[in-house]
Amino acid sequence: MDARAQVARTGLSRRSVLAGAAAGVLVPSAAIAASAAPAAAAAGQTRQITIYAEALPGNLYGYGLEPGKATIPGPLLEIYEGDTLEIELVNNTDQRLSIHPHGVNYDTASDGAPLNASFNNPRETRIYVWRTRTQTQASNGFTMPGSAGYWHYHDHAMGTDHGSGGLAKGLYGGLIVRKRGDLLPMRQYTVVFNEMMINHKVAPDTPIFEALQGERVEFICIGHGNLPHTFHLHAHRWADTRTGMFSEGDFHAQVIDNKNLDPGSSFGFQVIAGDGVGPGAWMYHCHVQTHSDGGMVGLFLVRNPDGSLPAGAQDAIDRFKHHDHTAQPEMSGHAEHAGHL
Amino acid sequence: MDARAQVARTGLSRRSVLAGAAAGVLVPSAAIAASAAPAAAAAGQTRQITIYAEALPGNLYGYGLEPGKATIPGPLLEIYEGDTLEIELVNNTDQRLSIHPHGVNYDTASDGAPLNASFNNPRETRIYVWRTRTQTQASNGFTMPGSAGYWHYHDHAMGTDHGSGGLAKGLYGGLIVRKRGDLLPMRQYTVVFNEMMINHKVAPDTPIFEALQGERVEFICIGHGNLPHTFHLHAHRWADTRTGMFSEGDFHAQVIDNKNLDPGSSFGFQVIAGDGVGPGAWMYHCHVQTHSDGGMVGLFLVRNPDGSLPAGAQDAIDRFKHHDHTAQPEMSGHAEHAGHL
Amino acid sequence: MDARAQVARTGLSRRSVLAGAAAGVLVPSAAIAASAAPAAAAAGQTRQITIYAEALPGNLYGYGLEPGKATIPGPLLEIYEGDTLEIELVNNTDQRLSIHPHGVNYDTASDGAPLNASFNNPRETRIYVWRTRTQTQASNGFTMPGSAGYWHYHDHAMGTDHGSGGLAKGLYGGLIVRKRGDLLPMRQYTVVFNEMMINHKVAPDTPIFEALQGERVEFICIGHGNLPHTFHLHAHRWADTRTGMFSEGDFHAQVIDNKNLDPGSSFGFQVIAGDGVGPGAWMYHCHVQTHSDGGMVGLFLVRNPDGSLPAGAQDAIDRFKHHDHTAQPEMSGHAEHAGHL
Repeated sequence: MDARAQVARTGLSRRSVLAGAAAGVLVPSAAIAASAAPAAAAAGQTRQITIYAEALPGNLYGYGLEPGKATIPGPLLEIYEGDTLEIELVNNTDQRLSIHPHGVNYDTASDGAPLNASFNNPRETRIYVWRTRTQTQASNGFTMPGSAGYWHYHDHAMGTDHGSGGLAKGLYGGLIVRKRGDLLPMRQYTVVFNEMMINHKVAPDTPIFEALQGERVEFICIGHGNLPHTFHLHAHRWADTRTGMFSEGDFHAQVIDNKNLDPGSSFGFQVIAGDGVGPGAWMYHCHVQTHSDGGMVGLFLVRNPDGSLPAGAQDAIDRFKHHDHTAQPEMSGHAEHAGHL
Repeated sequence: MDARAQVARTGLSRRSVLAGAAAGVLVPSAAIAASAAPAAAAAGQTRQITIYAEALPGNLYGYGLEPGKATIPGPLLEIYEGDTLEIELVNNTDQRLSIHPHGVNYDTASDGAPLNASFNNPRETRIYVWRTRTQTQASNGFTMPGSAGYWHYHDHAMGTDHGSGGLAKGLYGGLIVRKRGDLLPMRQYTVVFNEMMINHKVAPDTPIFEALQGERVEFICIGHGNLPHTFHLHAHRWADTRTGMFSEGDFHAQVIDNKNLDPGSSFGFQVIAGDGVGPGAWMYHCHVQTHSDGGMVGLFLVRNPDGSLPAGAQDAIDRFKHHDHTAQPEMSGHAEHAGHL
Repeated sequence: MDARAQVARTGLSRRSVLAGAAAGVLVPSAAIAASAAPAAAAAGQTRQITIYAEALPGNLYGYGLEPGKATIPGPLLEIYEGDTLEIELVNNTDQRLSIHPHGVNYDTASDGAPLNASFNNPRETRIYVWRTRTQTQASNGFTMPGSAGYWHYHDHAMGTDHGSGGLAKGLYGGLIVRKRGDLLPMRQYTVVFNEMMINHKVAPDTPIFEALQGERVEFICIGHGNLPHTFHLHAHRWADTRTGMFSEGDFHAQVIDNKNLDPGSSFGFQVIAGDGVGPGAWMYHCHVQTHSDGGMVGLFLVRNPDGSLPAGAQDAIDRFKHHDHTAQPEMSGHAEHAGHL
């Protein structure tokens, strides 16, 4: 059974299937999303996309690639070093807002900040241009870094001059700039820690990210808001590098499974789903105890290679779905918690 | 005078002395503890140990390698990449609890999380299996990281489904996975920043970690709880790498003496005690000012090579022991603090 | 037009201009400051300087290289690995205080901590000696790090035994230890995040750091106080390494534009001002939203190569200068914020 057949049967989508259809650019990063690969072609492509900022139910806002399709977080954008992204931002709201990227090059007109009068008035459309570059030599063997990294974008104009209103209401998303030759994942998931929420949800409504055992899965982790957080993933780890991997010679590279995800920061990494640990329902959560207890927890659901659920996974999902995260965590003097789940 | 004679005379224990006796596995990391080296033997050893979770005075709990010997933090566990650790966890308490590791491989049954029904009921014994692996090649020269790192373990089931009750009461410890060829230290100290405490103590009851001038000392630093912290060590520094060291070619490696130690994070490093700075009573502390003022401070006491105290050290210890950390730090308008110590 | 002529015309000073005059050591890091380069001469120089701790208006304190010239932050100190700095600290205040460095070597008498009776009583002068070292070989190819890094110094004795009073009132500054061969910048700026302030100021009184398009500019970032912060610079990025750069072989080095700047931590990096993004008024700010909204924001003003202001920059400066950061950030239900600036 080839990859496409698997996808058809399990209801999971694979990155390789979408790559052609999505014009090689970007894909909403909803739960169980898979993203389109940038075409690994010649350097310096210019891609033109339109992003729609729209109101969502619950006094929220989102970015989307089509009208009426806004999501929180917004679409995962992905390009190669050297590429340029021209974004036509259509503001379908009655709010001042913008789109401000991390990691890439832009002139002041594309800053997305009111400081530089770079924002969309209500109902206004505006072009933002993001350029990227490869690394450059300085001298004496010193190299100035290029744009490659796991970055993000967000509003910088709603509510306050720093976009605090937009961030509080959902205007943020992931942005990947790759080096040529980087390994491409089969699935991609964006995880945003923002106040006491993950992707603007509290458990049990937080995302269940799915993969098949053995798939290469990419996580893009972004911090926002006002609180310090740490991202922890059970049973998987990564190198604390740009890629989450390293080269044979990087003997001293630090390997981690818990990392600060504080406001404005982002990182990414790839894991082989269930590698060495097997399929199952693996938690990811903020490791600040009151945050995880309060619902900053979701599942990385690793299915069997054929897409079926491994033994025990459904029970774990049921526990996750039925657990009350709003209860005040408090320690009992005896064992009554043992049967709590 | 050789190492053993020094140890006998000074009352300090050395790693090399214990290595044989402790079966090459693990040692409690009390103040002034030294740990056993893993035997640097063939890959893929399986070690079987029993850990006892027990109640301690003051409504606390601890892990220990023998009944009645529980400590906070628990014993420092140490293995090589490729090894497997089979832990028989004996729950001698009337609480639901577990043991959840960072950095290593485990299947859902050993997750230690109620989500996966992986915990000990009161008075129950349960086996947890932790496997480790060496790094693996992906493709294009990319290397997926192995298990080596300065990790930790902790309860994930007491009080809440994230073990917040267990963490608040002492159920945590250090875990080292080494690569073959890593340098072994002569002493090892585990430092846990958890709420406003170090190893569940507030100064002046926090640990005084001792070493002889010139000894290779390893610190294993772990963060827990709900507060952000930064670990600072006076007069010593380390590279921000897996080992705290680097290779000749790592020209751009960052060197630090202050590092975030936020909930769920851990790191480790080795220093040569007193190297270039001499023996003395050196502070380690959280660098958040209200935290250090409140008692998140301890001593790294570097003795002379013969074990005697250097000039001034006893005075420093006396100041440390008699200082009142509960007083509200407040600045005086004049010089009355000058004689405060 | 050569560099000196440019400087004369624009009112900007350049590092290269000051290098001779300042005896190759140190320079106050006020806004629009440029620092003196250490003479890249033989290893092991000993430099003797005098630092004056003095009261400043507003119940503040500062360090300065001359009487009556104290600044917040204090002078940026800069040496090479192997050098020694002998600091005569003249305490011109009626407070107990000291100077405690990060990253360098010192014996207990120069610890700057009351624990080691290392402080200046009111009106007292005391010598502190800071030594540095190059990296050393351990064994098996492991290298123990030298002193090179972006460090800092601060009071450790005023108000509390951890200098919380001195830190709250301005007694801190930057310290750079370079490796031989490191690239030297043309401008240097010290940025201290301390409570809700940048260099003890709140916007719009925070520093406007200036540079000419294309200049190599060095930022030295330091965190102090009690709050977690993240430093973000618009339109520029750096590698998360000791230098902010890397070598051709460091393929996996992480590139960032937002980094934790928590109490006691420091890092530094160099950027080419406006490289690939053009001149303009670029914000740097804490990315914790309430912090930036509250005034933890300043400008990196990149001028045209001839020193003139680029189009739009004066408007941005005016917006920055006239914006009210004390107003409670709150989101409007309609578009009235659009014309707020």
